[in-house]
Amino acid sequence: MVLVLSPEAPEYKIADLVQRLEADGFAALLNRNGEETILCLIGDTGNLDPDELAESNDIVASARRIQEPYKAVNRRVHPQATLVQAGNTFIGEGRFTVISGPCSVESREQILEVAKSVKASGAAVLRGGVFKPRTSPYSFQGLQEEGLAMLLEAKQETGLPVVTEIMNQTQLSLMDYIDMIQIGARNMQNFDLLREVGKSDKPVLLKRGLANTIEELLMSAEYILSEGNQQVILCERGIRTFETMTRNTLDLSAVPLLKEKTHLPVIVDPSHAAGIRRLVAPLSKAAIAVGADGLMVETSSNPSEALSDGKQSLDLKQFEALMIDIRKRAEFEGKLI
Amino acid sequence: MVLVLSPEAPEYKIADLVQRLEADGFAALLNRNGEETILCLIGDTGNLDPDELAESNDIVASARRIQEPYKAVNRRVHPQATLVQAGNTFIGEGRFTVISGPCSVESREQILEVAKSVKASGAAVLRGGVFKPRTSPYSFQGLQEEGLAMLLEAKQETGLPVVTEIMNQTQLSLMDYIDMIQIGARNMQNFDLLREVGKSDKPVLLKRGLANTIEELLMSAEYILSEGNQQVILCERGIRTFETMTRNTLDLSAVPLLKEKTHLPVIVDPSHAAGIRRLVAPLSKAAIAVGADGLMVETSSNPSEALSDGKQSLDLKQFEALMIDIRKRAEFEGKLI
Amino acid sequence: MVLVLSPEAPEYKIADLVQRLEADGFAALLNRNGEETILCLIGDTGNLDPDELAESNDIVASARRIQEPYKAVNRRVHPQATLVQAGNTFIGEGRFTVISGPCSVESREQILEVAKSVKASGAAVLRGGVFKPRTSPYSFQGLQEEGLAMLLEAKQETGLPVVTEIMNQTQLSLMDYIDMIQIGARNMQNFDLLREVGKSDKPVLLKRGLANTIEELLMSAEYILSEGNQQVILCERGIRTFETMTRNTLDLSAVPLLKEKTHLPVIVDPSHAAGIRRLVAPLSKAAIAVGADGLMVETSSNPSEALSDGKQSLDLKQFEALMIDIRKRAEFEGKLI
Amino acid sequence: MVLVLSPEAPEYKIADLVQRLEADGFAALLNRNGEETILCLIGDTGNLDPDELAESNDIVASARRIQEPYKAVNRRVHPQATLVQAGNTFIGEGRFTVISGPCSVESREQILEVAKSVKASGAAVLRGGVFKPRTSPYSFQGLQEEGLAMLLEAKQETGLPVVTEIMNQTQLSLMDYIDMIQIGARNMQNFDLLREVGKSDKPVLLKRGLANTIEELLMSAEYILSEGNQQVILCERGIRTFETMTRNTLDLSAVPLLKEKTHLPVIVDPSHAAGIRRLVAPLSKAAIAVGADGLMVETSSNPSEALSDGKQSLDLKQFEALMIDIRKRAEFEGKLI
Repeated sequence: MVLVLSPEAPEYKIADLVQRLEADGFAALLNRNGEETILCLIGDTGNLDPDELAESNDIVASARRIQEPYKAVNRRVHPQATLVQAGNTFIGEGRFTVISGPCSVESREQILEVAKSVKASGAAVLRGGVFKPRTSPYSFQGLQEEGLAMLLEAKQETGLPVVTEIMNQTQLSLMDYIDMIQIGARNMQNFDLLREVGKSDKPVLLKRGLANTIEELLMSAEYILSEGNQQVILCERGIRTFETMTRNTLDLSAVPLLKEKTHLPVIVDPSHAAGIRRLVAPLSKAAIAVGADGLMVETSSNPSEALSDGKQSLDLKQFEALMIDIRKRAEFEGKLI
Repeated sequence: MVLVLSPEAPEYKIADLVQRLEADGFAALLNRNGEETILCLIGDTGNLDPDELAESNDIVASARRIQEPYKAVNRRVHPQATLVQAGNTFIGEGRFTVISGPCSVESREQILEVAKSVKASGAAVLRGGVFKPRTSPYSFQGLQEEGLAMLLEAKQETGLPVVTEIMNQTQLSLMDYIDMIQIGARNMQNFDLLREVGKSDKPVLLKRGLANTIEELLMSAEYILSEGNQQVILCERGIRTFETMTRNTLDLSAVPLLKEKTHLPVIVDPSHAAGIRRLVAPLSKAAIAVGADGLMVETSSNPSEALSDGKQSLDLKQFEALMIDIRKRAEFEGKLI
Repeated sequence: MVLVLSPEAPEYKIADLVQRLEADGFAALLNRNGEETILCLIGDTGNLDPDELAESNDIVASARRIQEPYKAVNRRVHPQATLVQAGNTFIGEGRFTVISGPCSVESREQILEVAKSVKASGAAVLRGGVFKPRTSPYSFQGLQEEGLAMLLEAKQETGLPVVTEIMNQTQLSLMDYIDMIQIGARNMQNFDLLREVGKSDKPVLLKRGLANTIEELLMSAEYILSEGNQQVILCERGIRTFETMTRNTLDLSAVPLLKEKTHLPVIVDPSHAAGIRRLVAPLSKAAIAVGADGLMVETSSNPSEALSDGKQSLDLKQFEALMIDIRKRAEFEGKLI
Repeated sequence: MVLVLSPEAPEYKIADLVQRLEADGFAALLNRNGEETILCLIGDTGNLDPDELAESNDIVASARRIQEPYKAVNRRVHPQATLVQAGNTFIGEGRFTVISGPCSVESREQILEVAKSVKASGAAVLRGGVFKPRTSPYSFQGLQEEGLAMLLEAKQETGLPVVTEIMNQTQLSLMDYIDMIQIGARNMQNFDLLREVGKSDKPVLLKRGLANTIEELLMSAEYILSEGNQQVILCERGIRTFETMTRNTLDLSAVPLLKEKTHLPVIVDPSHAAGIRRLVAPLSKAAIAVGADGLMVETSSNPSEALSDGKQSLDLKQFEALMIDIRKRAEFEGKLI
C-alpha cells in the first residue's frame, strides 16, 4: 500500500507514523521525490482499509493499494525517474550514457589503451570484467584481484568511473574503489547476493537473466531496493529462445515496458545479446530509438585475440564510428550525452 | 552454385547453357540485375567443379558455390536489393513504407473511414483482413468475399494499393484485384500455398512464423522465388518465448540479419508482436532505426469495439501522430517515405 | 453451454429444441454416449440462464456453462472416451496402438518390406508419407500420387490400415482409400484444411504444432469436431525450445493434461520429437507409462540411406525389439495391444 | 585427453607421471574404477600426440582425445556408473531412490510428521528447504538455521539422510550434519558456489537451470568434480518454454541423454516441473520408465496451507499410493528400491 503524505507533514509525525506501522509488522519505505513524500507499506496489508488510514492520520493525504508484487521499484509508488550516479556520471531519464570497455581485463596495457580510446570516443563509464563467470571451469576465469588493480589504474588515468561484475558476496569488500557493481545475468536470482549489494551504497547494474521475465527482473531489483540501496540500473541483454542465428534474442519491447513500470534507468547490452559484432551498431540505434537510457558495448583493442567474447566486440575504430552516430541520435531524441 | 555470366554473353548462348544444365538435372534460375547476369544452379552440384565450368564455357565469367541452403533469395547470388511494387508503391532499400489499416474489414463505413484517414496520415498501402485465421472456430472469421469487395471499394476511393491475407490456394482466384497477397505467420510453412503464390505474379508479404527461425523464413521465401515470383517482402512479427508481458517477442535482430542475407525487402509488424497499443510507437521507432524497409501497423476507427485485436490497434489520431514522428525519422535515416 | 437431456426425451422433442436454439443463432452439437444425451450450445450464451433453460424445457435435465473455449472436444461435455476406428483397428482409452512405417514411401519394395515387418512385429497401423512438407523446396518432396498407390498396395498385402499426411484440401479426394488422414505439425493451424477434413468422415491424426500450446491443439481439434467429424486423434511430437541436443523437446506432461481435458485419444511420436534413434525406445517407454493411448514410430528398412529423417528411424530389428518390450509394458499397464 | 594406465602401473610411477604433466601446465584428474585406472588430462592438449604419449610412457596403455568440453563427468572418461552415498543410502544405476518431504520446513511438528510418513511409505531420503530462494523479497524465506535444527531432529528420529538447499557459500559451514547439499536451479551457474561445494566432501544434488542446456548442466557438474568432489547427482526439473498450462516443461529426453553422456546418477523432480499435483504420479511413472535413477517428490502434511508450493505437493496418502505403484514399476524395471 502507498501512503501519500501531506507536504506540510512535520518530520516527528512521519517518524511516529513509521514507528507505529513497523510495530504492526509492516516494512515502511520512505520515498521523497522533490514534491511528494510517499510511504510504501510492505507486508500483509489485506486487512488495512486505505480510506480509513487516510482519514485517521492527518498527515496522510491519500492511500491506495499497489497491485503489482513489486513496490519500491514501482513507478506508481515513485513517479519521478531515478538518476543513478557513478563517479561524476549520471544515468537516467533525459540522458543517454554509453558504458564501454573489454569483456575481460587482460593486461595493464590493454585496459589502459581501451580506456583512453573509449573515453576519447565518448564513453562515460568504463567496463572490464575481472571475475568472469564461464560455462567451463577450464576457460579463462579473469585476472581476479590483479585485474581489479589494473582497472582502477585505468580509472585513475582517464577519470572514467568503472563497473565490474561481482560473483559472490565475499568479493564485496574488494569493490571499495569501484564505482558501480554489476550483477550478471546468471546471478539475477542469486537472492543472497542481491540482498548484500542492497545493503551497500554502491550503484548496481542488474542484468536480466537469460530466461527471466520482465516481472522477475523487477522483483530482483526489489530485493536490492528493499534493503535500502536505491541506485539500481536495469539492463536488457537478450533472452534464450529457439533462434540460433543470434546468441540470444534481444527483447527491445522490454525497454518501454520497464520504463513504464519502474522509475529506475534501463540500458541495453547489444554485444552479449547478439554475439555478433555486425549487429552491435543496428541494435544500438534501435535501443536509443526505443527509449533506453544508455548502452553497454564491448570494445576490444584486438578483438580477434581476446581471451573471451572477441567475436562480439567492436574494435576501437568501430566504437568511435558508433559513437559519432549515437551522438547524432541522442541529439535527435533530445537526450543529453 | 552461382555462375556469373559475361556481360557480352549473347542470349542464344545463355539459353543453350540453361538447356544443357537442365538436361543434366539442375534447376537454373536466371537473375539479371542491371549490371550482372547471374545463373543460379540448384540441385546436387557436389560433382561439379566451379573452375572447370568457368573455363569450359566462354560465357561464364566465374563460378562459385553457395553454402547456404537458400539460393534465389540469397544476397550473394543477387547482390542488388529487390524493389517490390504494389500498385504504384515501391517497397525496398532506400525507402520506408508504412502499411496500415484495420485487423479485419468489418463494414463498408469502417474500411472507408480508416482508409481515408491512414492515407491522409501518410500510409502507402492499405491492409484489411477478410479471411481471418482464428484460434477458435467460434470467433469472428472475417467478412470473406463480402469484405473483399469493401476493401476493393476502399482501394478505388483512396487509390491506395491493398494487401489482404490468403488462407488457402483456392482463394487465389479471388485475389485478382488485390495488389499484394499476405501469407500469415501460421501459414509460413504451408508449402503448397507458397508454391501456388510463387506461380502467380502478385507481390507476396510473407510473415515469419511464431516459432520459425530466420533461416526457415528465408527457405519459405525460396519456395516462392523458386516458382518464378520474385516479388516477396519478409515481415518480422514476433516469436514465441517464455515472456508473457507481451504477446510475442519482437526479434529486431532479425532485421539486419535478413537485410544482410537476402536482397528482399524486410518490414516489421509491431502491432501483432507486442499485442499492446502503447508499445507500437516505440517499437516502430526501433524498427526504422534498426534498418527495416517499412512497417505494418494496425489502425482502427474504434479500437475498443473492434471484432478482433482491438487491444493492439492505434486509433486514427494515434496513427497520425506516429506518422509525423516516423517521417522525421525517415528523413534522419535518409530514406524516402 | 451444456444441456444434459433426460434419458426419456423423445427424438421429436430433441429435434424441436435444436431447431429453436439454432433459430436463436446458436450452433447445437448433439453427443450421445451410451447413457447420456448431451447438447452442446455454442455461440454467445452470455444472456442465457442455465437454470431457466432447464426449468422451461421438460427434456432438459440440467444445464451448465463450460468455461473452456473448447466445447465439442471437452471431456466435461463428453465424459466418455472416444474410440477412433481406422480400418479394423480401434484407438483410444484402454488400448495401446502402435503406428509405424517409414518417414517417406520411397519405392514399392521398400514400403512392402517395411509393412510386412512392422505388422509381424505388432504394429496396428502403417504410416508412410507421400506428400512431404520439407523446409527446402529442393529437398525430396515425396513420391506424390505414385507413392500413394504403393502405400495402398502395402495396405492390401498386409491388411494394415494406413495413415498418410495431407498437405492441402485439394488432396482430400485422393484420400478415398486411406484409413486415416494426418495433419502435420506445420498445418495444425491451417484452419481451412481443418474445416475440410472436419467435413469428411475419415479419422484424423492431428499433430501438435512446434510452437503451439496444449490449448491451441484442443482448439484446432475443435475446428474438426465442429464440422461434424468426431474421429480425431491428438499427437504430441515435441515443441521448440532452446535445447539443441534434441531436435525438439518432447512434452510428455501434455499427455495426462490432454487425457484430462478431452475425450479424444492421445498418442506420442518420439521419433520426430527427439530426432535421434537412440532416444526412441526410452521415450516410448515413458509415453506408455505417462498414459498415452499409442505411439507413432518411424521405421526404415535402411535408415542410413533413407531420403528423409533416416537419423531418427529404427531399423526393422530395432522396432521388433521395441515391440517385445512395449507389449510387456502394455500388459503391465492393463492395456490391450 | 584420456590416458588409460596399465593395470600393473606402480603407484610411484603414476605419481611421477602426474607430476610431470602438471609441471607442463595440465590438470590431471585420476579416476580408479575397479578394473581401470584412468588419467584425465585437462588444458590445452592440442600439441600433444596421444600415440606418442602412449609409446613414450610404459605405464600408459593407451591415450585418446575427448572432444566434449566436459571431461571428469564424461562417461567416455569414466565408463563405470558412479554411486552417490547419502547416509546409508546409495543412489545410482541399478537402483531407484525416492527423495521426499515438504517444500519448506515450517515447524517441528510438520517436518516430523512428514518425515515419519514418507519413511513408512518408502522414501529413502528426506528433503526440506530451510533457506528458500523466492522471487519476491516479501515472500516467506524459510526458517533458516532454526529450520535446519528441525530438519536434523527429523533425521535423528527417522534415520533418513537429509538434503537441503544451499543459497551461498557462507552457509557451507552450517551443512555439517546434512547428508546432501542441494544446488537449486537458479544457482546452477553460480560458479563460485559450485567450486566451494566441489571442495567439500558432501554429496551434491545439482538441479538443471530453467533455461540451461543439457551440456551446460554437465559443465556445471564439471566445476564440482574438477575441485575433487565426485559425489554429484543431476536433477531434471523442467525448463522454461512458451507452454503455460504447466509451470515448466519437464524434459524427459534429458534423462537418457545424460545417462549416456555421464557416469553420474540422474533423478527427476516432477513436482517443480509441473507445478500441478495431478501430474506428479504420471510424470513419476514416465521418469522411471525413461531410465531415471530416482525421484524428488514434494509431500506435505497439509498442502492447502503450505507456506510455499502447496499446489504441487502430494499429501501423505497420495505419496503412499504413489510409492506402492513405484515399487511395482521398479521391480518391473529390475531396479533396487
